[in-house]
Parts: sequence; structure tokens; C-alpha cells
Amino acid sequence: MTDSFRLERDGHVATLTLSRPEKRNAMDAAFWEDFPDAVDALSEEGSCRALVIASEGPHFSSGIDLGMFQNVQDDELGAAKGMDSYRFIKRMQRTFTSLEQARMPVIAAVQGGCIGAGVDLVTACCIRFCTEDTYFSVYEAVMGLTADVGTFPRILNLLPEGIVRELSYTGRKMMADEALRLGFVNRVLPDHDAVNQAAQELAAEIATRAPMAVHGTKEIITYSRDHTTDEALDRIALWNGSNLQPSELMAAMVAKQTGQPGQFANLPPRRKVDGRD
Amino acid sequence: MTDSFRLERDGHVATLTLSRPEKRNAMDAAFWEDFPDAVDALSEEGSCRALVIASEGPHFSSGIDLGMFQNVQDDELGAAKGMDSYRFIKRMQRTFTSLEQARMPVIAAVQGGCIGAGVDLVTACCIRFCTEDTYFSVYEAVMGLTADVGTFPRILNLLPEGIVRELSYTGRKMMADEALRLGFVNRVLPDHDAVNQAAQELAAEIATRAPMAVHGTKEIITYSRDHTTDEALDRIALWNGSNLQPSELMAAMVAKQTGQPGQFANLPPRRKVDGRD
Amino acid sequence: MTDSFRLERDGHVATLTLSRPEKRNAMDAAFWEDFPDAVDALSEEGSCRALVIASEGPHFSSGIDLGMFQNVQDDELGAAKGMDSYRFIKRMQRTFTSLEQARMPVIAAVQGGCIGAGVDLVTACCIRFCTEDTYFSVYEAVMGLTADVGTFPRILNLLPEGIVRELSYTGRKMMADEALRLGFVNRVLPDHDAVNQAAQELAAEIATRAPMAVHGTKEIITYSRDHTTDEALDRIALWNGSNLQPSELMAAMVAKQTGQPGQFANLPPRRKVDGRD
Amino acid sequence: MTDSFRLERDGHVATLTLSRPEKRNAMDAAFWEDFPDAVDALSEEGSCRALVIASEGPHFSSGIDLGMFQNVQDDELGAAKGMDSYRFIKRMQRTFTSLEQARMPVIAAVQGGCIGAGVDLVTACCIRFCTEDTYFSVYEAVMGLTADVGTFPRILNLLPEGIVRELSYTGRKMMADEALRLGFVNRVLPDHDAVNQAAQELAAEIATRAPMAVHGTKEIITYSRDHTTDEALDRIALWNGSNLQPSELMAAMVAKQTGQPGQFANLPPRRKVDGRD
Amino acid sequence: MTDSFRLERDGHVATLTLSRPEKRNAMDAAFWEDFPDAVDALSEEGSCRALVIASEGPHFSSGIDLGMFQNVQDDELGAAKGMDSYRFIKRMQRTFTSLEQARMPVIAAVQGGCIGAGVDLVTACCIRFCTEDTYFSVYEAVMGLTADVGTFPRILNLLPEGIVRELSYTGRKMMADEALRLGFVNRVLPDHDAVNQAAQELAAEIATRAPMAVHGTKEIITYSRDHTTDEALDRIALWNGSNLQPSELMAAMVAKQTGQPGQFANLPPRRKVDGRD
Amino acid sequence: MTDSFRLERDGHVATLTLSRPEKRNAMDAAFWEDFPDAVDALSEEGSCRALVIASEGPHFSSGIDLGMFQNVQDDELGAAKGMDSYRFIKRMQRTFTSLEQARMPVIAAVQGGCIGAGVDLVTACCIRFCTEDTYFSVYEAVMGLTADVGTFPRILNLLPEGIVRELSYTGRKMMADEALRLGFVNRVLPDHDAVNQAAQELAAEIATRAPMAVHGTKEIITYSRDHTTDEALDRIALWNGSNLQPSELMAAMVAKQTGQPGQFANLPPRRKVDGRD
Repeated sequence: MTDSFRLERDGHVATLTLSRPEKRNAMDAAFWEDFPDAVDALSEEGSCRALVIASEGPHFSSGIDLGMFQNVQDDELGAAKGMDSYRFIKRMQRTFTSLEQARMPVIAAVQGGCIGAGVDLVTACCIRFCTEDTYFSVYEAVMGLTADVGTFPRILNLLPEGIVRELSYTGRKMMADEALRLGFVNRVLPDHDAVNQAAQELAAEIATRAPMAVHGTKEIITYSRDHTTDEALDRIALWNGSNLQPSELMAAMVAKQTGQPGQFANLPPRRKVDGRD
Repeated sequence: MTDSFRLERDGHVATLTLSRPEKRNAMDAAFWEDFPDAVDALSEEGSCRALVIASEGPHFSSGIDLGMFQNVQDDELGAAKGMDSYRFIKRMQRTFTSLEQARMPVIAAVQGGCIGAGVDLVTACCIRFCTEDTYFSVYEAVMGLTADVGTFPRILNLLPEGIVRELSYTGRKMMADEALRLGFVNRVLPDHDAVNQAAQELAAEIATRAPMAVHGTKEIITYSRDHTTDEALDRIALWNGSNLQPSELMAAMVAKQTGQPGQFANLPPRRKVDGRD
Repeated sequence: MTDSFRLERDGHVATLTLSRPEKRNAMDAAFWEDFPDAVDALSEEGSCRALVIASEGPHFSSGIDLGMFQNVQDDELGAAKGMDSYRFIKRMQRTFTSLEQARMPVIAAVQGGCIGAGVDLVTACCIRFCTEDTYFSVYEAVMGLTADVGTFPRILNLLPEGIVRELSYTGRKMMADEALRLGFVNRVLPDHDAVNQAAQELAAEIATRAPMAVHGTKEIITYSRDHTTDEALDRIALWNGSNLQPSELMAAMVAKQTGQPGQFANLPPRRKVDGRD
Repeated sequence: MTDSFRLERDGHVATLTLSRPEKRNAMDAAFWEDFPDAVDALSEEGSCRALVIASEGPHFSSGIDLGMFQNVQDDELGAAKGMDSYRFIKRMQRTFTSLEQARMPVIAAVQGGCIGAGVDLVTACCIRFCTEDTYFSVYEAVMGLTADVGTFPRILNLLPEGIVRELSYTGRKMMADEALRLGFVNRVLPDHDAVNQAAQELAAEIATRAPMAVHGTKEIITYSRDHTTDEALDRIALWNGSNLQPSELMAAMVAKQTGQPGQFANLPPRRKVDGRD
Repeated sequence: MTDSFRLERDGHVATLTLSRPEKRNAMDAAFWEDFPDAVDALSEEGSCRALVIASEGPHFSSGIDLGMFQNVQDDELGAAKGMDSYRFIKRMQRTFTSLEQARMPVIAAVQGGCIGAGVDLVTACCIRFCTEDTYFSVYEAVMGLTADVGTFPRILNLLPEGIVRELSYTGRKMMADEALRLGFVNRVLPDHDAVNQAAQELAAEIATRAPMAVHGTKEIITYSRDHTTDEALDRIALWNGSNLQPSELMAAMVAKQTGQPGQFANLPPRRKVDGRD
Repeated sequence: MTDSFRLERDGHVATLTLSRPEKRNAMDAAFWEDFPDAVDALSEEGSCRALVIASEGPHFSSGIDLGMFQNVQDDELGAAKGMDSYRFIKRMQRTFTSLEQARMPVIAAVQGGCIGAGVDLVTACCIRFCTEDTYFSVYEAVMGLTADVGTFPRILNLLPEGIVRELSYTGRKMMADEALRLGFVNRVLPDHDAVNQAAQELAAEIATRAPMAVHGTKEIITYSRDHTTDEALDRIALWNGSNLQPSELMAAMVAKQTGQPGQFANLPPRRKVDGRD
């Protein structure tokens, strides 16, 4: 089992923490396989209502592990096996797409440097909190690369296009205050402890909300982003025609009136057609 | 006839004012049918060149009327009639889509709380002015609901996606200053009178512009939002190939040179094929 | 040959300067044909790695030359030749689309007024720098026109939709500070000299990056803007499966370690099928 | 009230019959307004499960009434009011789009000539039966027109593109046997009586099927035609997640086992939000 | 392990045979999970160049197993768990989508009845051969269902839309000769042995072709079906820019000149990022 | 100037004839550049109303010239210059896309073998006539190639998908009778002279139709093929709002009443913005 991250559960909240601070949380080969498996398992199981992505040490992540990259270069790219590279990159994209497809909201708690694939990771999260000393760097072009595991399709919904282009051509650091001003991050906290605590509190708050309503909200925002207004309106109507849960409405109303956390059923876990696990 | 809003005309400017301040302008059943009919009539008639949406009392709107919602829950949803709910929600979506499809620009003048369906309404407007005490709350998830009458497809063009997600999962209030900073509202005014006056002045200014040019501009922005760059470029060329009016150009030039309001023909009113009204 | 702009080359950086300050750099008939030809030639030749668009005099551009417009009005539009107008507008759109399709990044250095077609031009650039006295005005509706050479499809990715609508219905000036706050411009510089220098420095920096990586980055951002997340992810994987250049990676690594500019091959020039120039 | 068609009901089957044989069922101005109103009413009411479109006399329809067309030419087109024409044509398109959007299947029973707008009409139907003496003619180009009320978007799903182009450029008659060979019509019957009877029998058979299942089938086929495979798969799953009716399944099973017509509930009628009719 | 089908390999050709003739090859719960796993494994492994889907007994398949369906009805649908049903149906869709996504061509060999989910299965195959006694029945509407595991999105590319609608509303049997006339099946063979032999021969022939070229062809046809002409042209160019294999061209040329089977490398097998199997 | 084809004009009809029968009309390097230039010139000039593509000798075309292909293999592909290949293939695609984008209809007159790029060519034509001895072969996979200059995006609208897949995986010859049965060709003529004469007669007939109406028809069919029904309906309305020509209607009516060819104005020729040729 990988030591590149660890999983913690606290009731309906889960936390995945990058745990190689001595490597500035560089993402090694095992990370790319194990991380999405962990996210998928949390999503499919049904009781996780909010996920925090955090990391140890002074920097969130320096991106892809250079050692791993060396291999790719020598072997696949050097031999010009376009098809193999294509499929390999798609496999790597799965790592962060898992965050977007997970049924529960995902909150990134960022400190220090968030570089290269680190940006790919946080753009696939729903919400970004960061420390005052955070900087984001779309560093791939400086390396002679075109970023390919998720930054570009997603970041255009998080920053104005002209800012995206400047950051991406140059690798320049976007500091926390600029990120806040433009809405790329939701909040800036003083330090690492504060950002972790704020992320946990937000996750805990979301975990008190009706899970079907929150899941539907996440899903519809993702769908709306990629479809026309008319198509999104139609899908929302069909979704709610199918999924509006009177029992959730009731529980939410009780929760609001009593000030107690709502008593909600979990999301239905994944079922195989033949009933096997 | 409904008492949930009233219509006023002043030359080429129309104002629809939500008029149930004692209910914080909650939208009752009659509102959902009568409001879009009023908007459509203004659009089709041809002489209205700008529309202001305002409201009475300290709050713009608390959203959907809870009484009406109770009925939906008991009857349609309790009986799990998915199809009926789907069609019912689509009927409700029509209420705010009418604002987007109207040929004239629509300006929202917002004060105090703008909650739930109130946000759906103002995101379907072209321009938002608000008071310093305004707050916006995408409140549906707190109620155990996924918002479905228009917020999500439209708000993603008005705010960065990460902000949208946070607001939508939590129902947190976005205050006027944050809304201004991120470009969600166009201007913040000191109080209710000031915001109403500013909205009227802007409407009056727009009403002095060439109506075909303004209508084309509204239409093309809406089209561009939902299509690729290439498709939008092509449509603009075809639209102007069809609709450029030398008489409007002349009138606009005269208006500019003389400093007098332009003398423009109205938009062509709706014609039925058989000439009946 | 036109005198409406001039071309300068400095190593891998090219600069196109609007050069009719006595006409506030209004775009005359020859400009619309010669400008895109110049941009295309730079793009196809292969050694240009960054392009700056600058202008002489106190204003960036007052937009389309009114004399040219007069002719269009009398002849084509007056005779209601919709088809001819459609094709003519598409021909004019080509002028700015050339900037978007060029393989190298394009930086606009703006001062004073940037009006009408001037806005169409700068929205087709990757990055916008401006002076403190700059203002942008989507002026077409004031002229009785619907803007049609590129502003609307592109500006919606640069500014929130509500701001776009207000600017476009009214022609109101957006000043440099508002443009910076909302991310429409990347930097505001004190004066004309400073903005030109900053643009040249950024161009020079980009010109030190791996050309294939930068070209791929420009291309993928443009593609992502107009496609769904899934489609963009797939295209990036296929693009890199085809175009990742180990030699570029190596050269970039050497450049980084030595602090010297990278030694990169130029982009492949355009080849005709039959080998003719 | 119009005399251009008449409506008959027989249980769950409705028939709309074009009834101006002395004018070869040319479509006059009143037809374009009254016909879609009649179709919409049948669709919204909920008990109609199949609709037949038939006609009196030796020819199905000669298309648009020339008298009506004369007016359009003189008034709207002569004055080059592009916007008015655009909206007028869209109003006319509604006439046949109503057939496609109706919740029940629509069967066309065709005899003799089916020309111009007659082809627009039958391409918006689900199923086409015709007599041996039927011919179809996309006649607009012969008239100096580009067909605009629905033929082109729909006929490309009914005939190979090369056949569509030949028919559309030339107006050549496609006879019944060619139409059958290429799958444009479902069956060819000997004469007018036979085609009407066959259409009624098919309508009666469809009316014995579960209405929700048939409506869902019609809707999904229409959706699939205009969306990618992935999008259509997703929508079908969501639709059935919402709309699968165990009571329909049971009733269908009983019907199959007993050989008796199924006892199915009607589709839910249209509800206004405020409960008014 | 399931007994609902069996796998045989013969060099580069694989055959999956439905093997419950006593149940008319009804698809039981285990089938829906095991079948796509088997197809995926063949696709990912890299040496399989053509796949035949065959079946035992007089009928190809009666579709979904009714016993399995009974459970779905009582449990999920009766409790109106829309979300669970939605996810369950998507899980079932995976079964046939695996055929479309497999890298090698898939040939269906059909005899006797091919009903309900049997049609879903064969429409996801590339090529259909059948016996003279074959009939296809889109039977879901007769059962009170809207078909949801893949027929509608795919069959519209295999049959004219009007034929699809008739078959789908009525469940009428389409016999082999009609299927051949309209191009739904590629060949009609006299009997079960003949159709199996013909399918094997075609598979063997395809297995002699260059695997990358055939895989690219399958992929591009699928892509073209779901995208515009311009997008498909661009993707083909990018695909071939990446994947054209000079060694395959050479081997194909040698094969053609010598009349011997080409000596081609297998497709690259799936690689995990961390090198694990 | 190339000798690979020649151009002939007869009034409003033009004919491009492949003229290297000794090479079975293989397409050499010069062909790929000169042919689209010739088509574009005919389209832009405005008086050509129908174009016939014919060829000399017993075979229509054996496709791409093998000599030319040899060079591509050694140079571009061997060096794995993905980007260069991508751009080169796009340049070659232009050759046949010119036929689709030309304003006048294009008719292919085919005899004998039509192989590889020959199929790419004829699928980009509007209408296909062929001789009894014609066969079509999508031959690329046999060569170890994925066809990339236009066949796949276009042929899916001309043949059922299953037929396309079989032809493309195997290279099997589709004979004239199968092509006619499935609607791939419009007519089969006895021999080379007959097919040329029939093509000329059809071209002459189309040349008597109103040019704007025919151009609009070609354009709308192409647009409809690549867009949803709703989008195509909207574009047709806007197109006709712009382009309906009362003078064409009148001339068409006179032509019909008198039996004389209509007296129509030519299409507007291409205009540069600055009036230069």
C-alpha cells in the first residue's frame, strides 16, 4: 500500500492527506493509481458527505514526481509510441477526474507551493482554501510540456481566460491575494493550521446538509458547466422529477426548526447487477 | 388577477415590481403563471426597450412561497409521479426564462435578502444593481432541495465556479461587496431609493439606443454563451447580414450629432400567420 | 502596401504596431486585409514565438474607419444584399481570428481609448496589458450596430456576463482599474512607454520557452474554451501522445539548470502537399 | 374556426384530416395557426395515445397556399424586414414541430401528391404509410425558395444524404416504391381507403400499449437523434429512474397474459403552477 | 463463474457464445457483470484482433431474464428510489458499451429470435450477420418499458428513423430480408452453421489486417458518428499524426505483395501508472 | 500547371475531369494543391451553378499516388514529427472539403474502380452517379492506414453504420447495385458515356434553378447534418430572413409559366474588404 497519502474518517467527513513532505508531496507512480481508488471507494460507499484534500509540510505539492517522469520520457515518449502515451495520459487523468465525479463535495486545503500537477489536482476540487503564503504555478510549459492531466479544461471556469493564458505560458506564481481577488480560492487563512481547520469546519457543515440535495447540486453544477442553458434546465427538471426526496425535505425542515443536525439517509451505495460486492 | 407584482410603463421603459412585502415578496402560485405572461407581452408588443425588476419592502424576495411548496410535496412528490414533477418544474422554469428571452434588456434592482428563487430570478436578468445591505443566498440545499428553476445554468457565467459551489452547498450569504468584487452585480447603491433610481436611469439610457441594435446585442450575447466561438461568429455575421438597418444607423448618427434622443422605429410586434391578434 | 501598421522583428519576437495615430489608429479597408495576412505569415513561418500588438499615439484604436463604413452602408446594406453582407462580415472576422489561430501567443499593449473594433482586436489576443489612462468601450450599440467582428464570443470568457451586457448595451467606458479588478487585463502600467516595455519583456520571456509546449498550451486553452471537459481531456491526451518532444524536454531541463535560454527547434513551417512554397 | 382540417376522436386515437381537397389541401393562413393548437391540445390533455394525419381527395397536400405566399412576398420580403421574416418563419415552423413534440406517436397516411410543405409535415411525423400512386416532391427550389419549415433537419434521418440533396436541388418526384426501398415510408398500400385503414389499425394497436412507455420511447428517440451516444444513454437511465411505472409493467403483463387491452392510466395532463386550466 | 456464456480463442480471434439455450439465452444477473468484464479483458490485453458474439440453440437471445427483472420491479422501482435505479441502469448499459469501446471489431452472428436486450446487444456490435429465420424485435414497449440499455442511441445510425419508431412503438418483428434491404444486417446466411462460419471467416480476415489501422478505423467511425464533420476531420488528422506506424505500413505492403498474413505487432496492452498488473 | 485534371466550362456548368488515366487517375502531389484551388475559384466567382467531377479511362481513381505516399512515410512519419503530419493531413483534407464548401452543387460521375482517396472524394460530392461496372473500396486499412482525408465523417450520412464498418475494416468492394440499393449512389448508368451524359444533364437542370435558392439548400443540408434539429430550424429561419430574394421568386415563377430557363442574377462574387481582387 502506498505511503504517498493517508485516509482519515470522522463521521460523514473524510480527509485524504498527501504525506510525503520530504518530497514536497511529489506524486509518485503509486499515488496515481491508489489515490483515485480511494476517492472512488469513498464515493461509492455512500456515507461520506464531504471530502477534504490536505497535505503535510510547508508545501501542498510540487506536482508529478520527477523520477517517474524520467521513465516516461525514456521509454514511451522516446520510442514515439503515440498510442501508448495517449492511453497512459488518459489513465493519469482519471486520478483527478475521480474528485470531480465523486458524489460528495471536495475541499482543498492548500499551503505554500501548489505547482504543476498540484494545480491539476486543486482545479478538480469544488472549493479551494489556502494560506497567505500559498502560490499556484502552472509550471508545465517551463518544463517543456503541455499540461495534460486536467488543468486547462477546468481552470477556465475558475479564472478569466487572459489570466489563465499568462499563467500557463510563463509559469508565473499567482499569490494568495490575487487568487482571492479573482475568485480562484474561496478563502485565505493565516497559516497551515488555520486552513486545515477551516476546511474541516466547512466539510462538517456540508455534512449536516441533506446528502441527496448536495449530491444533486454538485452534479448539476458540473453538468451545467459543460452544456447549454436549455439542456441544463431540462436535466435539472428531470433529475428533480426523479430524485426529490420528501423524506429529505422533512428532515431538513426538522433540522432547521430544531437546530439539530438533520437525520438523513445515506446515498445508495453502488450495487452490482448480480448483487455481488 | 394576481397581486404579487404590478406593471408600470413610462415611455419605452417598463417596470415590474414584486408587491407582497408583507410576505417578503415570496412567489406564490399565481406569480409563476402571471409574471412570465407579463414579460412575454412586453417583449412581443415591440415598444418596450428596457425592463426593470424591482420590489417593495426591505427584502427583494424570500423565494418560493412555502405554502405552495407544501402542496407540491404532499401531492406530486409524495405520489412519486416523476413525469408530472418533471413537467411541473419545466413550467416553473418558464417564469424566469421569459426574462432571458425577452427582446429588451432586463435590469434587476435588489435590496436586502435575495434568497432561493430570488437568485434564480436575478441570474436571468441582464444586469444587477443592489443596495449595500443586499445579500444573495442560494438557499435550496439548506431546504433539502436541488435548485431547479434556473440558477445553476446561468450563475456559472456570473461567478467563478468555485464560488458558485461554495454558495450552493452551504447557502452562505454573499454580501454586496463580495458580489461587486466578483462582478456578480454591476453597481452597489446606498439604499433602496438609490438602487431604484439608478436602475430607472440605466433603463432610460438604454431606451435611447437603437432598439434593433440593442436587441441583437442581447440575443448574440445569449447565443455566444451557449455556443462555440466559431458558431457564434457565424451567427453574428448572418444576423447582421439580415438585420442591419441603415435607418437605425442614420438615426443613431443624428442622435449623436444633435445630442437628442434617436428617433427609432419599434421592434416588429409578433405577427400570427393568419393575421389574427 | 498598407501604412496602417508596421511589422518589426527582434529574434523570436515580432511586433505589429498600428501606425495611423493621426486617425486614432482607425482601421481602414487595407488594414482588414493586410493585418491578418501579416499575422498568418508570422504563424506559418515557424520561428516567431511571441507577438506584440502595439500602437502609436495617445489612443490604441478608435475602431473601424468611419469612411469605410459609409460605403458599406450605402452600397451593400442599402440594397439589402443579405448574402453579400454576410460574406463580407465573415471576411472581416478573419482579421482578428488570425490572432487566435496564430501558433504563438499574442500580447496586446493598450493605451488611451480602445473602442469598438479595438475591443474586438484585443479580445482575440491572449494577454492584455494597459496604461492607467486606458478605457475600453464596446461602442457599437451607440452607433446603431450589433458588434460583429468578434467581441461577443470571446469577451464572455474574459468578463462576467452581467458586466459584458452592461458595457455592450450602453457603450460605457470600462477604466483600467475596473478592467484589472475583473481580470480583463493582466497588468496596468503607468504610461505608454511602460506598457510597451512590459509587453516586450513578457514576449521575450515567452520566447525563451519551448515553442512546441507553448503552442500546445495556446491551442489546448482555445480548444478547452469551446468544448466539454471530457472532450478537452481527451484531446490533450491525444495531442501529447503525438506531440510531446523529448528533445524539448531535454532542452528545457538544460535551460533551467544552466539559467541560459533553451536551445529549441522552431515549429515546423507550413508545407504544401506538393512541396511548393 | 378553420375549415382547412377537421378533428375526429375514437377512444384513445385521434385523427386530423386535411379537408380542402378542392384546393389539393393547400395550407392556408388559418391552418398554420389552428393546426398546431389542435395538436398541442391533444398532447396536453393526456388521453390521446396515437394521432393519424390524413387528408381528403386525390392528393395529400400541394403545400403552402399560393395566395398566402403572395402576401408574404409583397409585404414582408419586399420591404426587406429581415427580423420580421425571421420571426414569421419561426412561427410557421411551430406548426410541424408540434407533431414532433406531441407526447403520442403520429402516423401520416399519404396518397397522391405530397409536395413542398406537405413534405415538411410528413417528415415531422413518426411513421409514414402511403399509396402506390404517392409521390413526394421537395419542391421549394423550383419555386426559387429554400425550404424552411422543417424538411431539412428531419429528412436527413429518413433518407441517405445524397438522395436528399438530389431531391432538394431538383424537385424530382420520389415515387412510392423508391420511398419504400429506402425506408422513407414504412408501408405502401394499394389505395386511399387502404392507407387510411392501415394507419387507423396501427394507431389502434399503439393505443393498446402502455402510454408512459410509448411516450418515453418517442421522447428518447427524438433526443437520441440530436445528441451523442453517451448523452442519450445517460438521459435514458435518468428518465427511467424517474418514470418507470410498476403499475404500467403490471398492466402490460396482464394484457399480454389475458390477450385483453391493457388498463393503463392516462398521461398526466398539463398543470399550470397555480392550478388554473 | 457464470455459465451464461463461454469464451474461446483461436489465434487473434475470440468468440463469446451465449450458452443458456434452454432459457433462450436470456441474460441473467451474472451475465450483466461477467460479460463486459470478459470483453474489457480481451480489449486491454492487446492480441485479440476480432471478436465474434454467437449463441447456442434456435434463438440468439430473448433478452433480459424475467426473474431478474421481477426483483428490480419489487424492490427498487416500487420504493421509487430514482437515484438507485438511475445508477443501476447505467451499470447495465456498461455491458453493451464494452463492445463499442473494445479496440477490436465485433461481429454478431444471429439466428432465430433476437428480442429486447438482444437488440441492445447487437446494435453495439460493428457488423451483424444473421440467418434467414432471424427476426429482431424491440420488445420493451410491449412489456410496458422504455428500452434503456442502448438500443435507441445506436439503432438510429443503422436504420431510417421512421422504421426505428415503428419497430419501437409496436414491437413488430423485423425479418431478415427487411433487415438486409435496409442495411441493418450485412449478410443473411441460410442457417445457424452458415452464419457462425461466415462470422468466423470475416473475423479471421480482419485479424490479418494491421491492428493499429483497424483499431483507428473503429475508433474514428465511432467518433465521427457523435461529432460534427469538422471535429471528426480534425481528430483523424491528430490521430494519424500520432499513430501512423511506418512499420505497419511496411508489414501491410509485404503482406499484400507476398499474399501471406501480415506480421504485425499487437496493440499496446493496458499499463497502470505504477506498472502493476 | 498540373496535368492531373482539366477544367471545362459550358455556360453555368463546370466540369473537372481527372486526366491521368494511364495512372488510373492516382492523385499526385500537385493534384492536392491545384484541385481545391480550382474548386474555390469556381465557387467564389459566382456564375458557376453546378459542377461535375468526371474522369478519363476505365477507372474513376485508384486514390492517392503511391509515389507521393512513399515520401511521406520516409520523411515525416519516420521522424515521428507528429505536429508536422497533423498539419500536413489537414492540408490534404482541404482538397475534398472544398467540394463540400463550394456554393454550387457537385455531381460525381463514377466508372470502374473508385478506391481509397477516390472514395474520400466522392463522399464530399452532393450526388453520385455511377456505371454498372463501378465498385467502391475503402481500401486504407488494407494498406495499414486509417483513412484520414474525409471518408469517415461523411460516409456515415450516406450508408448505414454497419455497412460502413464492414467496408472499412475489410476493404471489400461495394458494387454498383449494392450502392444503389442502399442509396449511396443516386443512379446507375450502363456505361462511361451514359454516366457522363446523365451527370451533365442533371447539372444543366440544376443550373436552370434559382442560384440563391439552390445555394441556400446546399448550405442548409450541410448545416443540418452537423447540428440539432432546433439549431437547424433556427438557422434556416435566419438565413431566409436574410436571403429570400423576391426577384428570384419572380424569375422562378416566370420560368415555370413560360417553360423558359429562369433569368437569375449570379451569386455575389467574393469581395475583399479593400476592394482589391
